[in-house]
Amino acid sequence: MGSISSRRNAILSMSAGIAGLTFIPRMAPAGNRTEFNKQGDLEGFIAEDFLLQSKMAENLYHNYAERLPIIDYHNHLPPQDIAENRQFDTITQIWLDGDHYKWRAMRANGIDEKYITGDATDFEKFQKWAQTVPYTLMNPLYHWTHLELKRYFGINKLLNSKTAKEIYDEANRLLQTENYRVQNLLKSKNVEVVCTTDDPVDDLKYHRKLQEQNALLVLPAWRPDKAMKVESEGTYNDYLDKLSKAAKIAIDEYRDLIRALKSRQAYFNSMGCKVSDHGMETFYAEEFSEKEVNRIFRKIRSGRNLQTIEINKLKSSLLLDLGAMNHDFGWTQQFHIGPIRNNNTRMLELIGSDTGYDSIGDFEIAKPMAKFLNSLEKRKKLTKTIVYNVNPRDNELMASMVMNFNDGSIPGKMQYGSAWWFLDQKDGIEKQLKALGNMGLLGRFVGMTTDSRSFLSYSRHEYFRRVLCNMLGVGVEKGELPNDLELLGGMVEDICYTNARDYFGFK
Amino acid sequence: MGSISSRRNAILSMSAGIAGLTFIPRMAPAGNRTEFNKQGDLEGFIAEDFLLQSKMAENLYHNYAERLPIIDYHNHLPPQDIAENRQFDTITQIWLDGDHYKWRAMRANGIDEKYITGDATDFEKFQKWAQTVPYTLMNPLYHWTHLELKRYFGINKLLNSKTAKEIYDEANRLLQTENYRVQNLLKSKNVEVVCTTDDPVDDLKYHRKLQEQNALLVLPAWRPDKAMKVESEGTYNDYLDKLSKAAKIAIDEYRDLIRALKSRQAYFNSMGCKVSDHGMETFYAEEFSEKEVNRIFRKIRSGRNLQTIEINKLKSSLLLDLGAMNHDFGWTQQFHIGPIRNNNTRMLELIGSDTGYDSIGDFEIAKPMAKFLNSLEKRKKLTKTIVYNVNPRDNELMASMVMNFNDGSIPGKMQYGSAWWFLDQKDGIEKQLKALGNMGLLGRFVGMTTDSRSFLSYSRHEYFRRVLCNMLGVGVEKGELPNDLELLGGMVEDICYTNARDYFGFK
Amino acid sequence: MGSISSRRNAILSMSAGIAGLTFIPRMAPAGNRTEFNKQGDLEGFIAEDFLLQSKMAENLYHNYAERLPIIDYHNHLPPQDIAENRQFDTITQIWLDGDHYKWRAMRANGIDEKYITGDATDFEKFQKWAQTVPYTLMNPLYHWTHLELKRYFGINKLLNSKTAKEIYDEANRLLQTENYRVQNLLKSKNVEVVCTTDDPVDDLKYHRKLQEQNALLVLPAWRPDKAMKVESEGTYNDYLDKLSKAAKIAIDEYRDLIRALKSRQAYFNSMGCKVSDHGMETFYAEEFSEKEVNRIFRKIRSGRNLQTIEINKLKSSLLLDLGAMNHDFGWTQQFHIGPIRNNNTRMLELIGSDTGYDSIGDFEIAKPMAKFLNSLEKRKKLTKTIVYNVNPRDNELMASMVMNFNDGSIPGKMQYGSAWWFLDQKDGIEKQLKALGNMGLLGRFVGMTTDSRSFLSYSRHEYFRRVLCNMLGVGVEKGELPNDLELLGGMVEDICYTNARDYFGFK
Repeated sequence: MGSISSRRNAILSMSAGIAGLTFIPRMAPAGNRTEFNKQGDLEGFIAEDFLLQSKMAENLYHNYAERLPIIDYHNHLPPQDIAENRQFDTITQIWLDGDHYKWRAMRANGIDEKYITGDATDFEKFQKWAQTVPYTLMNPLYHWTHLELKRYFGINKLLNSKTAKEIYDEANRLLQTENYRVQNLLKSKNVEVVCTTDDPVDDLKYHRKLQEQNALLVLPAWRPDKAMKVESEGTYNDYLDKLSKAAKIAIDEYRDLIRALKSRQAYFNSMGCKVSDHGMETFYAEEFSEKEVNRIFRKIRSGRNLQTIEINKLKSSLLLDLGAMNHDFGWTQQFHIGPIRNNNTRMLELIGSDTGYDSIGDFEIAKPMAKFLNSLEKRKKLTKTIVYNVNPRDNELMASMVMNFNDGSIPGKMQYGSAWWFLDQKDGIEKQLKALGNMGLLGRFVGMTTDSRSFLSYSRHEYFRRVLCNMLGVGVEKGELPNDLELLGGMVEDICYTNARDYFGFK
Repeated sequence: MGSISSRRNAILSMSAGIAGLTFIPRMAPAGNRTEFNKQGDLEGFIAEDFLLQSKMAENLYHNYAERLPIIDYHNHLPPQDIAENRQFDTITQIWLDGDHYKWRAMRANGIDEKYITGDATDFEKFQKWAQTVPYTLMNPLYHWTHLELKRYFGINKLLNSKTAKEIYDEANRLLQTENYRVQNLLKSKNVEVVCTTDDPVDDLKYHRKLQEQNALLVLPAWRPDKAMKVESEGTYNDYLDKLSKAAKIAIDEYRDLIRALKSRQAYFNSMGCKVSDHGMETFYAEEFSEKEVNRIFRKIRSGRNLQTIEINKLKSSLLLDLGAMNHDFGWTQQFHIGPIRNNNTRMLELIGSDTGYDSIGDFEIAKPMAKFLNSLEKRKKLTKTIVYNVNPRDNELMASMVMNFNDGSIPGKMQYGSAWWFLDQKDGIEKQLKALGNMGLLGRFVGMTTDSRSFLSYSRHEYFRRVLCNMLGVGVEKGELPNDLELLGGMVEDICYTNARDYFGFK
Repeated sequence: MGSISSRRNAILSMSAGIAGLTFIPRMAPAGNRTEFNKQGDLEGFIAEDFLLQSKMAENLYHNYAERLPIIDYHNHLPPQDIAENRQFDTITQIWLDGDHYKWRAMRANGIDEKYITGDATDFEKFQKWAQTVPYTLMNPLYHWTHLELKRYFGINKLLNSKTAKEIYDEANRLLQTENYRVQNLLKSKNVEVVCTTDDPVDDLKYHRKLQEQNALLVLPAWRPDKAMKVESEGTYNDYLDKLSKAAKIAIDEYRDLIRALKSRQAYFNSMGCKVSDHGMETFYAEEFSEKEVNRIFRKIRSGRNLQTIEINKLKSSLLLDLGAMNHDFGWTQQFHIGPIRNNNTRMLELIGSDTGYDSIGDFEIAKPMAKFLNSLEKRKKLTKTIVYNVNPRDNELMASMVMNFNDGSIPGKMQYGSAWWFLDQKDGIEKQLKALGNMGLLGRFVGMTTDSRSFLSYSRHEYFRRVLCNMLGVGVEKGELPNDLELLGGMVEDICYTNARDYFGFK
């Protein structure tokens, strides 16, 4: 790409043959605008009533939602960092490292991988991010970025190339103070429960350490996705060996696998685990017989490759067993449905998975989901369940499907979960709330979860709560909801806190 | 779930280890809030200009839409109740019995089945419903509930545990009066035509009785879904025997089935029937030959099971023949597409179908729909057609697909039907109107239908009309539509009444 | 359909048996309303601030967007008309001929085909269109119609039966003047670049003529869809023969086809072509071997029919080769995904394709799209790419999928393209902008393209720009965006002009 002046000449020559064109002197080359880089402060942006567009909305947020504790029943925080009460050297480490949302944005902005996951310095990476921020207008990253800078660091400026250094220095200065150790960060946001995401083979030693510290309620969550990855034969056998070791059970037959998983699940349970989580493209609900499953499993263990139908049968059996186990421990099970992962093989080989190369899939959901849930229901093994979808076209399908399996045993047994991943923005949150409201009982919703890898993401709860209060408040203003502060305030409290507290049964 | 005080203690102890938590005394356990149960009146909620958010919207509704008669061309009212001019003992009987929308909400609210479809008393059931209502905020049930209480019973209070008894008594008192016999309920709502939903084997004796009474125009509608259920072999053969008896035609061959159906359709036609209705997951449009179809049909009659491909071929043939028959009688045919039914086997066996265990499916629609409609068009057998979808992700697909088959013979020949079932709320109605407007001619829309089993559902026409007038009125306010009352008022009249009157050709 | 008086009687008799019906004298039969036909002027409709609903929106539009040139990188204008600087006799010829959007609306309005594509006079056709316009309220045709009449002809009246003659005469009068030759029409809209849509066999003689004239930058675009239509065996062989002749290369083997295409592409490139365009139901990404492809291609050339799997393998190979060729020339490739075409066989045979019988499909997209883009990426052959979808349910999927393939080489390399065809209305544009914003970088968007066959469609750029400015302006008013005119103004300029200028690299 050329210099500014060569580009400006290009505009002029491009326009030369056109009648009536007025040369517009304001227009600079894309990507080099001075106005993107001014020393702007937030000037009323992200103020006290951010996203609150009616009096009732303000009232609901400030008098009901704002002060409630956070029960973060699903996230990807590293338990080691919490247990060791980590202090970060730079904002790059706490804010950019591992944040594939930002990485995708930077790549789309034409930033070289060196400054994203490569060997550039922390400041270089931060500056490249700062330079990208103005282009994220209308992306949730724009809101998250400024909300996090303001709430965690008291920084009241728009982040861009010009403000990057100043903000970098100020954030880094604060990060050196005691308040910015991760346990204090969590406490500052009134986080009452944290459920991390853990593999069955994990020894949970950091959870144990945390329980000994008695500082924060950090519980493990059971994520047996690797135990389901039967299609990756070599890797899968390696995983089974690890599981065998962790459970101290030889895994030769399918039933051994189930026994080993049960043993690990009992251990998780003893460590306070109350929730499982399952990430899948769609539900697996192939017909299978015990005999078939045994045969297929032996095929794996003897190192042979499976056919597609065999993979599906085995997964269907496993999923059903895992669901029944979730029931038997009285846990809540979560299903995250619909992403298509690792789409870029070149980058997968270069930097691995969870690096920003996943996106939204279009899988058939209704029939397999119905069949899976019905299979558990028929066996009387359907526990409390939360389903999340990543393709917004499926919101109403998912929200209506779970409603087929409420049995009157507890309020809100079957939950349509909060807007997730690609949908975790104002639009996505509003659509999830509306679909849930229209198809089910919004008043029984267990609310937002962070699903984040970052200790600076808890302002997303504030964000969710503002969107919720605004939706209700605007509804009152439009005459669509009764003008009844207590009724709506109670609903807000339930969704933001009380429902989750009652539903999950954490200690 | 524990008592209030044990839960309050739980909050306190839960928060014990967390720095900086302010105890919030307002917060009571979920589900037991006093504010949900106060003696609230509607306080301006559901007032004269409910849902009308601009002057033009008010004008359109009050001066154009409000007084128009209702042509209810599709519903599930029991003709017997109308013919016998039924009087209901309690509001539970007229309002909760058979209303699976409310049942789903109650189950989601943790209500035991005893109080839903079980043997609890009418008042107990009503009270459990009342207790659930506050949790339906943002669900159409919340609007419907209060609109119906207000319009039919003049009750101006929010329904909840506290107001339940008072409202129950007042509604029951009114139900004993002459005005609350079903024919008067229909007349009070200015209902001009009612089309019920009837099986080909039905003798239509109540329709005959109604025609003799000459009190209301209640017409049958032809719903041959059981004649299409070829996959349920035993039951299907039983059904064929009933049909054979009704038509007085032995059904051995496929052509006998068609002859029997034609004979019954002629009878329906003689009884004033002008519309058919077909409920399906998606359109059936498999390739088939006459010979194949004959063979498959004989296989059924000889009691043998069909393969999937045979089921699809037979259904495809039947659907095409039924479509051609609709054409030959000059009727309007309706297709309700997309639900996935009876997802909960345990409850299906316990309490049967249409009890609240259906939801939204994700079937392939475009290719089979195109093929089916094109097959009729090629044979010059495509009659006036209305299609309805239940998955909102297909709105634009369906609205654009029907537009391929208008032939200029009559205005609005191919209709994209009103928001239905899971979509029958403000959001769903607005999305249907927008999709229809964007893809077709909203001005030619035949409007709302009730699709209800309840005599208290006619205020849904008011609801639809308010949403329509509001959408147009707000469009004017935003400058998106011309500020032309006559133009828009005429459009409103057409959609609410005149188009349906001209389109269906009821007497 | 009867006369007015017989219909009015029908209303009366229809209502006879219904208690309480008030006769509504205002209501005339549908389709004959006098108010639809009054001599209305626009009365503030489509005024200076049309669609701009906040001060910031007005500011952004009038001070940033309005005066920018148009880079129309994809349309279907006939190069011959431009080269010969065509003058149209009537508004019917420039406005209705070939406009299948209007044709669909007319058919839906019950207009006979004679007045649409038949042998009626130009004025008769115009009058039938005028009569249809009031029924297009809420359809983009209503906005487009009045915007085009106002911007191109200074006509300030609503088009309907009553105003038809007057408007017809005035427009025709103006069309005879020099300003209404097509080159002046383009200049009047500040059109800087026009990319037409051209087949590989095209000799581009009109583009050559235009380059000699040096009047306007009209470039060809490479649309090799016919080279992909391997399923239409006879027609396909005929096409290959034409291609062989154009390229002067005998086409016996698959590699000959590729050589011939490369040769034509080099010619297009020499004529200034910088973009390709590919129209498909979905991406083709079947596994194939070189050997298989060779065998399948020979099968075609020997006149034998292909099986479905062979069709898919061949298409997959071709698409990959075409993608690699786009890369090797450094072009931008566009993929238009998702329509289902020629659904009405009867009309296809009668009047051919592109006549208003296409609609929105529901194809599986995620896996084939990922596989196709990944295959190019693995080969390091993925060039700048824009994808467009026609089913709005896939907006988020497509917007998120392209983001997997940005490589940091240039800003906005992978583009989620503007709302297209059935989605080219306010709703569709807003949804596309939101999906792009939420999933990617709106600030790097290359903006609107016309995709039109009409010289009067350039006011759609004005339409798009107003919708964009309004969305941002309303965002500021709601506090969702910073109140920063320079920042937002810069973004508007980039999206409306600068990004496209920098991205495509037209001369």
